Amino acid sequence: MFIYQKIKSLVVDPDGIYYLGPKGSFSHEVALKIQGENYVEQDSISSVFAAVNKNNGIGVVPIENNREGPVNDTLDNLFHEDEIYINKEIEMPIRLVLAGSSYTKITSETKVYSHNHAIQEAKRTLQKLGITRVIPVDSTSRAAILAKEENALAICSEFAAKIYGLKVIKSDIQDGINITKFAVISNNITLEGDRSVVLFTVPHKPGGLFRVLQSFYERNINLTMIYSRPLKEIPWRYYFYLEYEGRYMDELMQSMKSNVEEIKFKGSFSFLYDNARF
Amino acid sequence: MFIYQKIKSLVVDPDGIYYLGPKGSFSHEVALKIQGENYVEQDSISSVFAAVNKNNGIGVVPIENNREGPVNDTLDNLFHEDEIYINKEIEMPIRLVLAGSSYTKITSETKVYSHNHAIQEAKRTLQKLGITRVIPVDSTSRAAILAKEENALAICSEFAAKIYGLKVIKSDIQDGINITKFAVISNNITLEGDRSVVLFTVPHKPGGLFRVLQSFYERNINLTMIYSRPLKEIPWRYYFYLEYEGRYMDELMQSMKSNVEEIKFKGSFSFLYDNARF
Repeated sequence: MFIYQKIKSLVVDPDGIYYLGPKGSFSHEVALKIQGENYVEQDSISSVFAAVNKNNGIGVVPIENNREGPVNDTLDNLFHEDEIYINKEIEMPIRLVLAGSSYTKITSETKVYSHNHAIQEAKRTLQKLGITRVIPVDSTSRAAILAKEENALAICSEFAAKIYGLKVIKSDIQDGINITKFAVISNNITLEGDRSVVLFTVPHKPGGLFRVLQSFYERNINLTMIYSRPLKEIPWRYYFYLEYEGRYMDELMQSMKSNVEEIKFKGSFSFLYDNARF
Repeated sequence: MFIYQKIKSLVVDPDGIYYLGPKGSFSHEVALKIQGENYVEQDSISSVFAAVNKNNGIGVVPIENNREGPVNDTLDNLFHEDEIYINKEIEMPIRLVLAGSSYTKITSETKVYSHNHAIQEAKRTLQKLGITRVIPVDSTSRAAILAKEENALAICSEFAAKIYGLKVIKSDIQDGINITKFAVISNNITLEGDRSVVLFTVPHKPGGLFRVLQSFYERNINLTMIYSRPLKEIPWRYYFYLEYEGRYMDELMQSMKSNVEEIKFKGSFSFLYDNARF
């Protein structure tokens, strides 16, 4: 409950909370933890960023998964949208259920819809149940919508099953550990918290990245995430996405500035764990 | 022609050249530049790695695109398959055509199939031609197969159009710069060439990555690509994929070894440009 309180205190009457849809998505589930009145689904990560910009709202997007790595669209939008900052990160375990309409019996004809990643993770359960007709779709919430068909099931979240009126047949069917980090974004920068994100480009010469990392090493700061992403129009040139333990420090920024070409500080914020993980 | 000669000299009677299919894919086009007799399509990157291992063959897989970034499946397989090495990298411009059966006339009913990335890149051309019925499929070669339907077109490579007997209606319809790097892989390590790849993990403490990069900085070695990828079963821990200018150096390896937890050298090799780029 402690975490829920903390998130509530973040919100100051936003003009909408925009999340990556469709309804019933994991982003939707995270968005509902934020106090608000107007929850609006968007069909892409770029649309969430655009809606936040346009309406001075709050956005919820996935940023990293422990199996798949970074969510490229989120990183690229953070780099290109200068007026959007990270206000919170929320870690959420991806728990999957098998669900269908209440009269579905599993037979050799039963179809199962899900996102390809979820299918991979539920492989063992599907084998045990003798299910072989598996149809990949673009999200687990889309799967829940399609599971309303006759003799069809979905691998989705318990939340999506509830939203679309499906009955849960089997819970926790995922193999292994699967956690997604979500970012809460807005046009307001925050400078307090235990995590910070900074994006930058370095000169293309020996030691380019090394010199930037030196600023962190000399201050004994731990990096929690570093990804490189292509600049697209200039082949084989990159920007870096770096998350570190600690808050904004003017002196650290000054030290970095002497070794970067471009630098964008994206905020200091709290890193929250979803209760359900423990 | 110089490049083609070079690639020929690479091959010593392999037991099959395995590429990411379907037939007509860009990997297929690259595979055909390698002299051989037995070209075999595979339905996933992991299958290419498995086939190379099983048959002591040669594999062709995409490794990086200047817009999309790294091809995660290729990086992860290189990290997990200890006996597979990179023998060449080949850079290929992704040029797209609009193609269909010879009697297709563009009307408001005309469907266009393609991979989502290719659709994005051909947006302006589609607008000019007044085409609005666009159907995303999982590859440009799959699009070429589907374009055999009545009143359908594909956005695909000229090569795919040729393989599937389509007529090219418009060439070079891509916007912007789009280049993919492909890796030629096998069970044999090569130690000569102007590029090298090494994969490693670092201790999770301040300066972990910094100390490894120091080995390169002190030797004035330029990094051409560095990506981090999750270790999956241990959340928020990573391995690094690093490509540098230069060949294998025993002394550099020794220097790195004192600062890494795990290290896998994946070979030194030539970096080739496809002629068509110039």
